[in-house]
Amino acid sequence: MKIKGKLYQSIWEENNAEIFIIDQRFLPHIFVREQLTNLEQACNAIQEMHVRGAPLIGVTAAYGFYLGLLEDQYELEEIAESLKATRPTAVDLQWAVDQIQLQLKNIDHKDERHKIALQQARKFREASIKSCYSIGTHGLSLIEKLAAKKKGPINILTHCNAGWLATVDYGTAIAPIYLAHKKGIELHVWVDETRPRNQGARITAFELLEEGVPHTIIPDNTGGHLMQHGKVDMVIVGTDRTTRCGDVGNKIGTYLKALAAHDNDIPFYVAAPSSSIDWDIRNGVKEIPIEERDPNEVKWIQGLENGEIKKVLISPLASPALNFGFDVTPAKYVTGIITERGIAEANETSLLNLYPEYK
Amino acid sequence: MKIKGKLYQSIWEENNAEIFIIDQRFLPHIFVREQLTNLEQACNAIQEMHVRGAPLIGVTAAYGFYLGLLEDQYELEEIAESLKATRPTAVDLQWAVDQIQLQLKNIDHKDERHKIALQQARKFREASIKSCYSIGTHGLSLIEKLAAKKKGPINILTHCNAGWLATVDYGTAIAPIYLAHKKGIELHVWVDETRPRNQGARITAFELLEEGVPHTIIPDNTGGHLMQHGKVDMVIVGTDRTTRCGDVGNKIGTYLKALAAHDNDIPFYVAAPSSSIDWDIRNGVKEIPIEERDPNEVKWIQGLENGEIKKVLISPLASPALNFGFDVTPAKYVTGIITERGIAEANETSLLNLYPEYK
Repeated sequence: MKIKGKLYQSIWEENNAEIFIIDQRFLPHIFVREQLTNLEQACNAIQEMHVRGAPLIGVTAAYGFYLGLLEDQYELEEIAESLKATRPTAVDLQWAVDQIQLQLKNIDHKDERHKIALQQARKFREASIKSCYSIGTHGLSLIEKLAAKKKGPINILTHCNAGWLATVDYGTAIAPIYLAHKKGIELHVWVDETRPRNQGARITAFELLEEGVPHTIIPDNTGGHLMQHGKVDMVIVGTDRTTRCGDVGNKIGTYLKALAAHDNDIPFYVAAPSSSIDWDIRNGVKEIPIEERDPNEVKWIQGLENGEIKKVLISPLASPALNFGFDVTPAKYVTGIITERGIAEANETSLLNLYPEYK
Repeated sequence: MKIKGKLYQSIWEENNAEIFIIDQRFLPHIFVREQLTNLEQACNAIQEMHVRGAPLIGVTAAYGFYLGLLEDQYELEEIAESLKATRPTAVDLQWAVDQIQLQLKNIDHKDERHKIALQQARKFREASIKSCYSIGTHGLSLIEKLAAKKKGPINILTHCNAGWLATVDYGTAIAPIYLAHKKGIELHVWVDETRPRNQGARITAFELLEEGVPHTIIPDNTGGHLMQHGKVDMVIVGTDRTTRCGDVGNKIGTYLKALAAHDNDIPFYVAAPSSSIDWDIRNGVKEIPIEERDPNEVKWIQGLENGEIKKVLISPLASPALNFGFDVTPAKYVTGIITERGIAEANETSLLNLYPEYK
C-alpha cells in the first residue's frame, strides 16, 4: 500500500536476500527503514515492536529463523526458543517457527538448511499477502450488503492496527475497507487510538490518510457512546490468537467494544487469517497467554514535539501502572470470523466447516 | 485532603472573601494556586478545566456568580448565561446558578445582592463537603460488606477523577475509599487513566498517592480483562448528571466499564450527590446533553519532559479526531446509586424513596 504515493510492503527483500522492515515505532512522524542482519536484531525488532501485528511478526520470525541459521552458531532449538520468547500472545509467530523447525529437523547440510528456511520465510510472506487479499474480498461482501441498505457512508469502527502495516500487505481487518474504498463505496472509519501504544492513532490513521480513506481518531472510551447513537454500522478488528471455538484474543480493549456492539445490535467481525487460529485450544479466557509489558509504556507517552520525538510522563512518577497487551472476547459476542476461506460463525462447527483438516 | 502532608480543599476563601482554586491542569507535576477575581476568570477556569468535576464546577460557578455581581456591569441573566455556557453536561452547575438567580430575583440593593450571592456560594461549598462525607459513609458500608467476605485487598476500579479534587473535599466515588482506608480496611484501587485528558492517571493517582492508598494506573482498555480474571471486586464512579430514572451521565468510557462489570457479575456503583441528579429528565441517552470538546485534546497529550510541561502529537497532524466528554450508562447496568441520604437502586421508585420531595 501507499506511503506518500509510493507502494510499500511492511517487510521485503532486496538484492541477495537482504531483509528490510519499516521500523514502525516512529510512525506517523518519521519513516525509518531498517535492515535485519541477524537473529538478535530480528528478535529485538519483534520484542520492541519495530514490527507488530500478528501476521507480520509471524513472517518476521520466519526471516529471523533464516538469519539465525546464517550465523552458524545456534542450535535449531535455540533459534526457535529465542524467537518464541519475544512475544507470547500471537500464535502466528509460534506457528511459523514450529513449521520451519519441522522442515529442518532432518536436514543436516548447512546450505540446504539456509535454502529451506529462506524458502519457508518467502512462502509465509506470500501466503500472508494472499490470505489478506482473500479476507478483504470476503469482508467486502459484508460492507456491500450494508451499503445496499443505507444512504451515506458506512461507519466502521476498528481497534488497534490490523492494516497493511500489521501484515505484509492489505491488512486483515482493514483489507475489506481498502477494497470497498477502491470500489467507490462511501465509508468512514472510527479509529480507536488504542492505548497504551496508540497503534490506532499512530498507524491505522496514518495508513488510512495515505490511502485517502475518510477516518476520525477517537479515544478508546468513545466507541460505546457512538454505538448508542447509531453512528457505528459495523466493527471489524484483527486477532492475535483465536481459539477453535471462536474466542478471540486481540489488543486489550477489544472485549469492551464487543460488549458495546452486542448491547447495541451492531455486527462485530473479526478478521482472522488461518495462521491466527489456534486449533489446540478452546477456552480463550483461560488458555490464551496474555503478554504483560513494561508499565512505563502506560506512564510515558511518545509523540512529536517541536519536530522531535519525545516521551512525556502523564502520571505521578511514583504511581505504579499495569500493562496487559491483549484481552479475550468470548465467542458469544462475535458476529462472524472473516477468514481467507470465507466467513464463519464464531463456533467450532462453523470454523471446522471451513477448515475440515482440523476436525 | 493532603498534598505533601498539608491539608487542602479544592476551592477556598482567604481574608475578605478572596476566592482561591487549585489550577488542576498541571497536576500531578506542578501545583498552581490561582485567585479568581472576576466572572471572566471564573468562566475560563471552568471552561478550560482549571477546575473540573461536577460538584466542584457547581461551587466554582456559585462563587463566579458572586464575582460577577461585584463587577457591577452585568445583568443577572448575563452572569447566569455566561456561567451556564461554560460546560453543558454537569447539572450541578446549572442548578447552582439557577438557585442563586432565584434568590436574587427580587433583591435590588447591590450590597444585599453581593451578600446573598456570597452566602449561597458558601452554602453550596459547605453542602458539598457534607454531602461527600455522607456518601463516603454509605459507600463505606458496601466496602465493609465485601471485606467481611474476602481475604486480601478489596480491588475497586474507578474511572476519571471523582475524588476530593472533583469536589470541595473527600470526593464522591473516592470518599468511601478514603474512609475505608482510614479505617484500616485493606484495599487497592485500579485507576483508569481516562483519556483523553487523563484525569485518572493525573489526578486520581495523585490523590491516592498523597493519601497513601495503594493503587495502580491502567489504560482505559484494561478493566474488562481484569474483571474477566476476578481482579475487580467492585466499580465506583462519579456522575455529572443522573436522571430521575437512574441513567448515569459520566466521563466518556464509563458505559464500557458498566457493560464489563455486568458481564462479569461485578457490582457497579455510582456516587451521586443530590446536586448531580436531574429530576427533570428520565432517558439519559436521549436527554443528557453531551459536551463535545476540542479534538486537539485527543491528538496532543500533555505531560512532563525534562522538568517541563509539554504537549506531544500522537497522530498524523492531518487526521481528524472527535472528542466527546461524556457518555450515558443506562440504569439497568447500575447496581446502586450512593447518595448523601443512602443507597438507592437505579430506578425512579427507589430514588424517590430517598428524595420524596421530587415525587
